[in-house]
Amino acid sequence: MNPRVRIVGTGLIGTSLGIALSRAGYAVVLTDPSPTATALARDLGAGAVASADDPAPDVVVVAAPPDVAGQVVAQELGRWPSAVVTDVASVKVAVLDQVRSLGGDLTRYVGSHPMAGRERSGAVAARGDLFDGRAWVVVPSDESSPFAVETVRALAAAAGGTVSVMSPPDHDAAVAAVSHVPQLASSLVAGRLRELSDPAVALAGQGIRDVTRIAASDPQLWTQILAGNAGAVRAVLAEVHSELGEVIAALDTLTDGDGVGAREVLARVVSRGNAGHARIPGKHGAAPTAYATVVVLVPDEPGELARLLHDVGDAGVNLEDLHLEHGLGQPFGLAEVSVLPAVAERLADELTSRGWRLHG
Amino acid sequence: MNPRVRIVGTGLIGTSLGIALSRAGYAVVLTDPSPTATALARDLGAGAVASADDPAPDVVVVAAPPDVAGQVVAQELGRWPSAVVTDVASVKVAVLDQVRSLGGDLTRYVGSHPMAGRERSGAVAARGDLFDGRAWVVVPSDESSPFAVETVRALAAAAGGTVSVMSPPDHDAAVAAVSHVPQLASSLVAGRLRELSDPAVALAGQGIRDVTRIAASDPQLWTQILAGNAGAVRAVLAEVHSELGEVIAALDTLTDGDGVGAREVLARVVSRGNAGHARIPGKHGAAPTAYATVVVLVPDEPGELARLLHDVGDAGVNLEDLHLEHGLGQPFGLAEVSVLPAVAERLADELTSRGWRLHG
Repeated sequence: MNPRVRIVGTGLIGTSLGIALSRAGYAVVLTDPSPTATALARDLGAGAVASADDPAPDVVVVAAPPDVAGQVVAQELGRWPSAVVTDVASVKVAVLDQVRSLGGDLTRYVGSHPMAGRERSGAVAARGDLFDGRAWVVVPSDESSPFAVETVRALAAAAGGTVSVMSPPDHDAAVAAVSHVPQLASSLVAGRLRELSDPAVALAGQGIRDVTRIAASDPQLWTQILAGNAGAVRAVLAEVHSELGEVIAALDTLTDGDGVGAREVLARVVSRGNAGHARIPGKHGAAPTAYATVVVLVPDEPGELARLLHDVGDAGVNLEDLHLEHGLGQPFGLAEVSVLPAVAERLADELTSRGWRLHG
Repeated sequence: MNPRVRIVGTGLIGTSLGIALSRAGYAVVLTDPSPTATALARDLGAGAVASADDPAPDVVVVAAPPDVAGQVVAQELGRWPSAVVTDVASVKVAVLDQVRSLGGDLTRYVGSHPMAGRERSGAVAARGDLFDGRAWVVVPSDESSPFAVETVRALAAAAGGTVSVMSPPDHDAAVAAVSHVPQLASSLVAGRLRELSDPAVALAGQGIRDVTRIAASDPQLWTQILAGNAGAVRAVLAEVHSELGEVIAALDTLTDGDGVGAREVLARVVSRGNAGHARIPGKHGAAPTAYATVVVLVPDEPGELARLLHDVGDAGVNLEDLHLEHGLGQPFGLAEVSVLPAVAERLADELTSRGWRLHG
């Protein structure tokens, strides 16, 4: 029999999880500090509203904001003496420390980090397929019982997540490097645009658009995330700060000094960036593949992009990736079509023969 | 009659410009330190190989690497006493200073920065439409004659560029903020991934993929660009470095201090990033529009993306932008379809009725 699940907090993650688990046959009850939010989640199919008559849950999922997650986990551990409790906060050491300091039974607590959600928030944005194929990191402590770990793994898998297991410090160090520090770098670069002149901002090309896309993220949520992972974020940021200092010193010797060694510093920073970038896994978590890119001019008219992709499909070529670029004041865009290298030349020929203009 | 153009340097930019101007009816001659490169550019339709018998050019375009551009401009100004000379380096103050220090006639020199090219290089990648609709900044000095400025403007327009005019310091400050500092930030963030464990790197999501896309850029070229714009890059980097220092201090007070004021610092950095990001112009250089986004699950099978865009076109809705996201280990991608807010709901309904699964 599927376990009884209690979800505490019916925002985007809690509600989506309720929908996913209800569909998977779990008996889900919901609670939230806001009765309106709980009722909305119920209406969206996330489960029943929790009541005093409910049987004790087998698993409790705490989907509260990161800064209160530990406190709510400890409360739920105390309230349900035989339940396994997990949370979904994107930082894990701080939550574990809080649960420990509040005397929660750590054998029954296993952290979770479903990597889904992004900028949107609230139950209205909830979807039962939010976790489908997304990474879901299960984060046991040394004290977690094997049964508790297995229970949380099974729940994550039932919700559609692609499960991996990491220790709390390893998890926090990983997300500091792959998520929290990139967020700060994006925000800091975007912040420089505030006081730029209009003609200067108008020179923004695709590079800065990509670098600053996540700079649109919510300050309140990110303050909680960064504060909750302060130690690990600080460690990575200190490396960035130090290397940035070396770059500034190198630029100084170019403008006011003899310039000796400056170019080596600049080349090293960009080369290290090459090496780090090459480590990011490709599509489907596979090793990165050097896709070939065919760049096509797409007129800015309804249906033109669709016609292009129809022609790509007609050519029997599978699109591995697609990147659209809009330039300044132009009546068309550039579509970068990524395909396996072996078929790139044939695709280019096919598209040219169908009247598409390819671009260097 | 169209002017006679002499192009010095037949890499990607020089060769592409030769093709574009030849098509526009200009009489183009080509020269490069490498006779093989010159011959290749000629064979690609970029113009004739320059010879001692050529009549004097009206315009010389120096398409040499940034670190030698000033020197070559000065040589060409001396060799052709009535020609207007421009260059295409992506930094402008350093080139002007070099031309001045070498005694070049500054009335006939006007800098250019065609914003095209990106990672690819060499004549083999050249296309006559490389500049179509791309920003081309014309960068006169105080000494440039109006005739020289007009000549370079006309050439940029004939090549297909969207022309704007800026002073050398304004240009260099603008590209430092919108191009050179984003490149360094991307490289520094990517550099942190070098020594991360495989499971940690596997957590990389779309955010860091976007932030580090340009970290794959060429170290040699970027060393020249950064060194050539050292002063302006340093000014923007110093702001980033200082704000990063504040973030680190704030994180320290959270781990080892009383935490007072720390959250305000973090929230301010992310909020400023919001404000800067909002200034980036939308498509066509127009004011940013808050597009509505419809997120669609696209199975990873040939032709599925094309079918989606076909359905979008069928619905009579114009796609404003498209962003594809690949997650970890999933058999499909998410397509973020950006459209005008007024049509988003109708599009969502249409797509749902055609069997598409919408997301979040």
